[in-house]
Amino acid sequence: MHSSVTVTGIEGLPLIQKGDDLPQLISERCALENGDIICIASTIISKAKGYSRSLCDVSPGQQATHIASVTGEDPRFLQVVLDQACDVLVETPFTLTELPFGHVGVRSGVDASNVEDGLVIVLPPDPMKEAKEVRESLLRITGKECGVIVTDTCGRSFRRGQTGHAIGWSGMTAIRDFRGDTDLFGRTLEITEEAVIDEISGFANLIMGESNNGIPAVHFRGIPKWTGHDNIYFRPEEDIIRKALKKM
Amino acid sequence: MHSSVTVTGIEGLPLIQKGDDLPQLISERCALENGDIICIASTIISKAKGYSRSLCDVSPGQQATHIASVTGEDPRFLQVVLDQACDVLVETPFTLTELPFGHVGVRSGVDASNVEDGLVIVLPPDPMKEAKEVRESLLRITGKECGVIVTDTCGRSFRRGQTGHAIGWSGMTAIRDFRGDTDLFGRTLEITEEAVIDEISGFANLIMGESNNGIPAVHFRGIPKWTGHDNIYFRPEEDIIRKALKKM
Ligand SMILES: Nc1nc2c(ncn2[C@@H]2O[C@H](COP(=O)(O)OP(=O)(O)O)[C@@H](O)[C@H]2O)c(=O)[nH]1
Ligand SMILES: Nc1nc2c(ncn2[C@@H]2O[C@H](COP(=O)(O)OP(=O)(O)O)[C@@H](O)[C@H]2O)c(=O)[nH]1
Ligand SMILES: [Mn+2]
Ligand SMILES: [Mn+2]
Ligand SMILES: [Mn+2]
Ligand SMILES: [Mn+2]
Repeated sequence: MHSSVTVTGIEGLPLIQKGDDLPQLISERCALENGDIICIASTIISKAKGYSRSLCDVSPGQQATHIASVTGEDPRFLQVVLDQACDVLVETPFTLTELPFGHVGVRSGVDASNVEDGLVIVLPPDPMKEAKEVRESLLRITGKECGVIVTDTCGRSFRRGQTGHAIGWSGMTAIRDFRGDTDLFGRTLEITEEAVIDEISGFANLIMGESNNGIPAVHFRGIPKWTGHDNIYFRPEEDIIRKALKKM
Repeated sequence: MHSSVTVTGIEGLPLIQKGDDLPQLISERCALENGDIICIASTIISKAKGYSRSLCDVSPGQQATHIASVTGEDPRFLQVVLDQACDVLVETPFTLTELPFGHVGVRSGVDASNVEDGLVIVLPPDPMKEAKEVRESLLRITGKECGVIVTDTCGRSFRRGQTGHAIGWSGMTAIRDFRGDTDLFGRTLEITEEAVIDEISGFANLIMGESNNGIPAVHFRGIPKWTGHDNIYFRPEEDIIRKALKKM
């Protein structure tokens, strides 16, 4: 039988505070080996690094006030959403934005769950850097070469329900590239680019749960290595759905 | 430590032919327990059931010929794509359709990989029924209550690369519903519906691979049970991205 992959939620992590050393906390709760992959919820990266905003400090502008008048959301929350964005694809019924690092997400991934009252968590501004930093710290602490993925729970088109997505990664490529491979009959493949980091992040998200599960990190052992590239975000002119939204 | 989930590709399955008994072939290669989940690539369901078309038998109509003139694809292949669809959301640069069972997918999920020359595989017309049939047969053969998911590799919006999605399922709900749950601070959650079957299907797709890997089924042990509902497909009027595409 094919060797198995094991997937384990990392239990016993505390409520993360600004300044906490995540690689240290994780490595104390999980015996790493070379080739393991650790998925970390972006929420705790943001908590540890202080990527949050206090709503009392926010004065909503015209666009946030307008959207709030339609959706009934807090205009200060929406101002934080707009502050994170480099482009707004949809204003209502939900605000869909592009972030400077390339991710397209509902409400810029700004989150008021699992955080103290009056605070909102924003996504790390450079999640690739955060993933690299955790990977290098894990290597320093444990001597083991692991891959690290920073995840967020996101919606998608055409299907109800959120799933986990990768927003930062280090020690692997985002996409597995099958170009040049052949099928079972020796012919060129039609499907050539698989977003494996999103497939891993989705499953990690299931193990994490959303609510008071308290599992913000997940350990994978036994995923075979792959090769590919990191161009997971479409350029605006490549993305026909984005073009359609912009024309609305 | 949290109990682990193990994920295992089911090796040694033959090239599937029309009439093959998939539950029998799977149960011979995998010792099932109650609560296990088996993901099966839709490709082999379609092969076993004969859901395929021979391109020699297809005469392309006007719309297929038109799309082919833009994309350079085989107009007969596109006619099969259109024959599967109940609605066409995008014609070019890639044909995006809705299938009668609710799924929205590129080229209606029609596939010319991993199948003999001149044949194309279409998705099972009722994948929920296929999942139920496999689940009931596995129960009959092994006495074990397992969940079954039928998967397909699909693209998505805003991000490059395909991932595995569920198109049929039995013995579980599509969506885990967190409504009524609270966060780590006792407050109502913002994210309330998680598409867990897509998170499982995505990870199964990674283990399957695309090309000549020969792993069309994946076994999961240890995923905790969840509760929720099956409404994974938006109604057209709920889906703002679909509305935008229709206006193009
Ligand atoms: N131990 C611990 N778990 C947390 C903390 N914050 C969030 N979680 C858990 O991490 C998981 C993911 O949280 P979520 O808010 O959905 O993160 P996101 O998907 O990155 O937005 C859930 O199981 C939460 O209960 C924390 O500070 N400490
Ligand atoms: N053993 C076996 N493997 C197959 C067969 N057809 C496809 N596969 C494998 O199943 C996996 C998924 O195949 P793919 O064509 O991508 O299926 P899809 O995602 O359902 O469209 C790959 O590892 C293929 O090599 C078959 O008839 N027998
Ligand atoms: Mn989030
Ligand atoms: Mn989450
Ligand atoms: Mn397919
Ligand atoms: Mn596939």
